Amino acid sequence: MDLVIGIDIGATKTKIGLVNKEGHCLETNYFRTREYPDLEEYLDTIIENINHLTSKFPEDINILGCGIGAPNASSRHGTIVNASNLVWKGTVPILDKMKERLPLPMKIMNDASAAALGEMLFGNARGMRDFIVITLGTGFGAGIVANGQLIEGHDGFAGELGHIDMTIGDGRLTGLGVHGGLEAYVSATGLKRTILYMMCKYMDDSRFRNIAYNDLHGEDITKAAAEGDPIAIRAFDYTGNILGLALANFTAFTQPSAIFLMGGLVNSGKWIFEPMHRYFEEYLLDIYKGKVEILRSGLPPKTTAICGAAALIWQEHWEK
Amino acid sequence: MDLVIGIDIGATKTKIGLVNKEGHCLETNYFRTREYPDLEEYLDTIIENINHLTSKFPEDINILGCGIGAPNASSRHGTIVNASNLVWKGTVPILDKMKERLPLPMKIMNDASAAALGEMLFGNARGMRDFIVITLGTGFGAGIVANGQLIEGHDGFAGELGHIDMTIGDGRLTGLGVHGGLEAYVSATGLKRTILYMMCKYMDDSRFRNIAYNDLHGEDITKAAAEGDPIAIRAFDYTGNILGLALANFTAFTQPSAIFLMGGLVNSGKWIFEPMHRYFEEYLLDIYKGKVEILRSGLPPKTTAICGAAALIWQEHWEK
Repeated sequence: MDLVIGIDIGATKTKIGLVNKEGHCLETNYFRTREYPDLEEYLDTIIENINHLTSKFPEDINILGCGIGAPNASSRHGTIVNASNLVWKGTVPILDKMKERLPLPMKIMNDASAAALGEMLFGNARGMRDFIVITLGTGFGAGIVANGQLIEGHDGFAGELGHIDMTIGDGRLTGLGVHGGLEAYVSATGLKRTILYMMCKYMDDSRFRNIAYNDLHGEDITKAAAEGDPIAIRAFDYTGNILGLALANFTAFTQPSAIFLMGGLVNSGKWIFEPMHRYFEEYLLDIYKGKVEILRSGLPPKTTAICGAAALIWQEHWEK
Repeated sequence: MDLVIGIDIGATKTKIGLVNKEGHCLETNYFRTREYPDLEEYLDTIIENINHLTSKFPEDINILGCGIGAPNASSRHGTIVNASNLVWKGTVPILDKMKERLPLPMKIMNDASAAALGEMLFGNARGMRDFIVITLGTGFGAGIVANGQLIEGHDGFAGELGHIDMTIGDGRLTGLGVHGGLEAYVSATGLKRTILYMMCKYMDDSRFRNIAYNDLHGEDITKAAAEGDPIAIRAFDYTGNILGLALANFTAFTQPSAIFLMGGLVNSGKWIFEPMHRYFEEYLLDIYKGKVEILRSGLPPKTTAICGAAALIWQEHWEK
């Protein structure tokens, strides 16, 4: 049986899985990324996990290659560069170091671009030629497909939409030092920052007045909104507003037929989707109205990123 | 000799020319667009101009087709839709009506996308796979090339970057009703609006305090800056700031290796280029620094748009 190793390097977790031709993740494992500030140890741990996963298959399996999705990854250079949410700083030559340990065809890509490929090969974007995938996790990532091809950019760094400035240089600072960057508003972290902003702006009573910033979690904000907490409701409306505006802006760029949302913030359900839809329709140019669907991923939520990473390798075998 | 008709439908002028395989515009003519509010009369005038141009060639010429560049044009439908700077409103089925008059292969495209094709075939973008062309005229247009292909979008309306909101829904209104739209700041019209803003914000003396808005012209603002008018200098700095920020944002989208600027505002030279470069470098993410050139068009300024329009047809013959 042919299989591809998919690795998702996330700020919180590193997920590893074995993915078959249909995009099913047959075996999976994960560990906490932050526990390995030493890169060599981190990569050794990945290899141990891969060996553990492949040992579960008694029959003959044929590993075709290994695909890696990571924030701020350059597909052209095989590096991760200045990833604000990862522990390793500067330029990390991750592909070369992985190849020393694992002699297989290997590719790395920005995690959201990998997710877009996964959606195109295995998910709800099958047959689509123009779409955008947005990942709303610790940060804000984007994978853009136009004319049926992933846009990688001149140097492999296309789609860093979390660092687009929405405020003419006068807004919240992102982890990369961008004032007004989208990620500082629309992400799990952005939502937490908006809770502070709303408590500063309004005098509403809220459970969050008794909780320190570092103890705030996305799930708690969703729960609070469901229970009528006015600060949580205001925070979701504000976040949905900026997300809706951003998606309207993105539409003016490549005019996708669909935008897929995935990642932790999507779990807030109607609290984020309802205002996002409302503001999106309000901001969208007339020429685009009714022509852009906002959809959820067609891949299993827990293994979306692994499937995306594996798609980097599967894509080449499909094309053959 | 094989020739292609190139037509540039601009808010002010309609330009028509005959373009050879090398992208040289051999004969050209123009008339004022606004003098023809009646579409049928307008199109008849185009045909008269074409006949006049072709009659200048005594020898046998072979017209391969006709390419049209226009604001808010959909390449997929052959229409112009809600063009805020043109006299004809709603959806204009311009390609069908032109084909009734001229039985030739014919294509229409957003003027800036056509300019991008022209730059790729005949100008300074030859050999480039990832670049963006920005036209700064009455409005703000964009043509985006990624992976060596023009991005047309799901429905032919990609690249409407003049209507991207830069202010989280709270800024100047564009002709299409977008608050904070880029075009309301960065265009010949935007510069004039900024003169008003600067005279409102500051008490500096300025020649423009004696000139009505409708009598303001871009060239006069450039001249005033050169002569030290503080309001003109402030207006260029402000415009360059927002342009620099916009180009940094666009870089995060498709990571072009170059961005080409063309159109009337480019004639302001250092007054717009100097602040634009300064702010662009300031806003650009570290991963992009030193990798994006901002260039001028390699096509003759007066016939850039005609060459772009003709490139729509020439492209197909090149590919054969």
